[in-house]
Amino acid sequence: MTNKHALSVTRTQDFAAWYQAVVSEADMAEESGVRGCMVIRPWGYGIWERMQRLLDDAIKATGHENCYFPLFIPLSYFEKEAEHVEGFAKEMAVVTHHRLKAEGGKLVVDPEAKLEEPLVVRPTSETVIGAAFSRWVQSWRDLPVLINQWANVVRWEMRTRMFLRTTEFLWQEGHTAHASEAEAREHTLRMLEVYRRFAEECAAVPVIAGEKPENERFPGAVATYSIEAMMQDGKALQAGTSHFLGTTFSKAQNIRFQNREGELELAQTTSWGVSTRMIGGLIMTHGDDDGLRVPPRVAPWQVVIVPMLRDTEEDEAVLAYCRELAGELNKQMALGEPVRALLDAKAIKASNKRWAWVKKGAPVIVEVGPRDMVGGNVSVIRRDRLYQDNGKLASAIQPRAEFMSDITRLLEDIQASMFAEAKARLDANIQRDVTDFASLERFFADSRQFPGWVEVEWSKPTGAELDQVDQRLKALKLTLRNVPEDASPASGACIFTGKRAAERVLVGRSY
Amino acid sequence: MTNKHALSVTRTQDFAAWYQAVVSEADMAEESGVRGCMVIRPWGYGIWERMQRLLDDAIKATGHENCYFPLFIPLSYFEKEAEHVEGFAKEMAVVTHHRLKAEGGKLVVDPEAKLEEPLVVRPTSETVIGAAFSRWVQSWRDLPVLINQWANVVRWEMRTRMFLRTTEFLWQEGHTAHASEAEAREHTLRMLEVYRRFAEECAAVPVIAGEKPENERFPGAVATYSIEAMMQDGKALQAGTSHFLGTTFSKAQNIRFQNREGELELAQTTSWGVSTRMIGGLIMTHGDDDGLRVPPRVAPWQVVIVPMLRDTEEDEAVLAYCRELAGELNKQMALGEPVRALLDAKAIKASNKRWAWVKKGAPVIVEVGPRDMVGGNVSVIRRDRLYQDNGKLASAIQPRAEFMSDITRLLEDIQASMFAEAKARLDANIQRDVTDFASLERFFADSRQFPGWVEVEWSKPTGAELDQVDQRLKALKLTLRNVPEDASPASGACIFTGKRAAERVLVGRSY
Repeated sequence: MTNKHALSVTRTQDFAAWYQAVVSEADMAEESGVRGCMVIRPWGYGIWERMQRLLDDAIKATGHENCYFPLFIPLSYFEKEAEHVEGFAKEMAVVTHHRLKAEGGKLVVDPEAKLEEPLVVRPTSETVIGAAFSRWVQSWRDLPVLINQWANVVRWEMRTRMFLRTTEFLWQEGHTAHASEAEAREHTLRMLEVYRRFAEECAAVPVIAGEKPENERFPGAVATYSIEAMMQDGKALQAGTSHFLGTTFSKAQNIRFQNREGELELAQTTSWGVSTRMIGGLIMTHGDDDGLRVPPRVAPWQVVIVPMLRDTEEDEAVLAYCRELAGELNKQMALGEPVRALLDAKAIKASNKRWAWVKKGAPVIVEVGPRDMVGGNVSVIRRDRLYQDNGKLASAIQPRAEFMSDITRLLEDIQASMFAEAKARLDANIQRDVTDFASLERFFADSRQFPGWVEVEWSKPTGAELDQVDQRLKALKLTLRNVPEDASPASGACIFTGKRAAERVLVGRSY
Repeated sequence: MTNKHALSVTRTQDFAAWYQAVVSEADMAEESGVRGCMVIRPWGYGIWERMQRLLDDAIKATGHENCYFPLFIPLSYFEKEAEHVEGFAKEMAVVTHHRLKAEGGKLVVDPEAKLEEPLVVRPTSETVIGAAFSRWVQSWRDLPVLINQWANVVRWEMRTRMFLRTTEFLWQEGHTAHASEAEAREHTLRMLEVYRRFAEECAAVPVIAGEKPENERFPGAVATYSIEAMMQDGKALQAGTSHFLGTTFSKAQNIRFQNREGELELAQTTSWGVSTRMIGGLIMTHGDDDGLRVPPRVAPWQVVIVPMLRDTEEDEAVLAYCRELAGELNKQMALGEPVRALLDAKAIKASNKRWAWVKKGAPVIVEVGPRDMVGGNVSVIRRDRLYQDNGKLASAIQPRAEFMSDITRLLEDIQASMFAEAKARLDANIQRDVTDFASLERFFADSRQFPGWVEVEWSKPTGAELDQVDQRLKALKLTLRNVPEDASPASGACIFTGKRAAERVLVGRSY
């Protein structure tokens, strides 16, 4: 079986090049000409819009309201933070001037228009939102404050990669303030669970939810939790994080409230975010050698109808048949929403259109030629099962009425199958039988095997002892991912320190 | 009749102070501590989300897809534009460095981290989108390109005012490229009509759509159209613009295509935008001395239920009654969407909650006390008819079933009434009988009357002659607004030049 595939490079040949090929061929994004920034193209942005809507609904269902905070943050806000936060990152875009001027036929920055205080382009909004919380919160009655923001943020990255690490990216950042530590910790985990469900049920990306080790915490956090997804090259992608910030930011930003006893107390805060990085995770979870495959729930179009036109008089009748089909499909429901069907009537050869939609990964592609029309049929391609066993394209002719009555089940089945396939891969590729460091080393040295992750027992070292673990792993290009919420209890010895193990932690290569 | 109102200042006392009071008391926005930037609070942002969803649907219905382009634009892109665009604005935020460093216990901009080429924070995206179009467009087959972006933009404003003029604001900017001038011009007007319908049918803000005079064009545009709304102080607010850009930006950004005859041609482009400024227009169109009134279509919550709790055992039954009511309301449809009803169960005194929702302008407020519950009733306040003739609050007790069966009609009636009220004000306050400049001067000098606008005949002067008109008007704090699409033809003499009139133009004060 030697399929010819739609992409010029396969996953096994060169995974990184394959990823770039999908990003480009599936109309997801492109280089913008601006250092480290991408243009998100319609199909990529359409997937982001679907993700936004589903995640936004889930966030609102937990009692959050959306707000919008300034893009620019005065330098002095970060000074307050730097006092309180170790490991505070300093690679940020800084606005220093507010005017251009023409000089000798060129445009230059006007030195007269220098700002008194430089403005930082937000890398995240804890400081400026903390300042707002300090205005909003006076009494225990004002708590909890539960807000969320959809925004662009900027981190000056040296090496960038589309969707995975870009100078500017899009995300949502949730921020909350609570009267008690217990409530704030509970909320941190509630939002982690929102992320887990979003990843698994909407993006069909199975993840492991758990707490990050101390050395992987967000600067200033008391505890950081993540969802980790396994890519098809076995690497881990951190696809969302939720932080319990304790009083770090309420100290820095002076968020105090009068408690029921009339005493002033610092509020307990949390923050959590999911970004366009999730799209990179979607590509590396579901893509194949023919391009992307988009799960129906996050697909901008779930069914794309391609009419086979031949520049004959029949064309109009075929188009009418397709229009009716699209209209009827859009009245059906699947996965709790109306079906999204598109008639692609562009003046392009039908076979080119078919392959363009295969590369984009529309879940269902329906082709309609004059013969289908006459027979009252449609030719259906299911993107997640593109080929027959003999290597030929699996296009099935079906009576139109049957296709219509089956569409709900079909889309729901594709959503479930895609998740099951990825979940089976994740489950099969977490090794739990590595009990000493030498075995870990050997395991990841074996280049013949798909690496996946290793879940090992450890003593949960801190400080200098943890740094040592970190260094030993770094030498193998490995990192600690998280301590899975639902891992078995530890019973043996730590593979790093030899001490009695406290819990089980995931180790893997990562993006 | 001496109503006491919920705001401390009325529209007639001080319109500007009243506006600030609504912004603040209705939980719309607040100063952020960052120069010229605001924090958009939940109710304000909720209205923006509703506007976004409705306008986005309308834009997509015209064949547009959403994309996302970089926040930063290299300085050199503006150089190309400056060559082609007269009147190019230069007040922009400029990023010059990419790192902070600690120095003597302070954070400073690291001089080592100076960018080779400064980056401008986008004031609008014609240049960077033009560069993308030049990559995307090769042949007539690639045209038209129809895209849209929701984004934040920054213009360095000296005097700012929340929603109306802020350094950073949110908007959508649509950009298109076409093969022919006729098609591009038609599209410019199509999007103007989308804006007119959005303003009138969704925000219930009546507008006059028309072409801006030459001196009010967007720099680089061949023609600029606007929708102009009349605020309650008689000033005009430009609430949306649509530009036919001809080949200005395709020359600057090299957007060329091979036409059907195989020759290279410059594409014809358009751009158009609506921003958070529309929220300022909403406030000044619909607000009253008790706060904001939000038309149901753009209200985050259309019906707010306030339980009258008394810290007694009855409370739980009242709450259960209210929950059921909210659940049932949310199953009703109005204005083509499910009804959005909220149960406000916060631990705040019921009368305070009632007035908070009056100030925010929820279209319908329902109060439920133990007596209402026992009688199977609800007490209904319609925000757009808050008082009875005797000056008392108009709260009507109604059987719950009757209220439920009436809710669709009620919300639709509020939407229609609010539009009708604003439309009557607009129509009554455009004077069309001013036939000479002295009368115009007298008209606007008369401080006793509500100024409104004046529609006069003019000869459509250009160049220096138009500058003169502009100067004469400016001396009276007036500007030319637009030439209404549906104005009567001109038949007399130009009130500025005395020449034979070519058309009718609107003159007014403006924001």
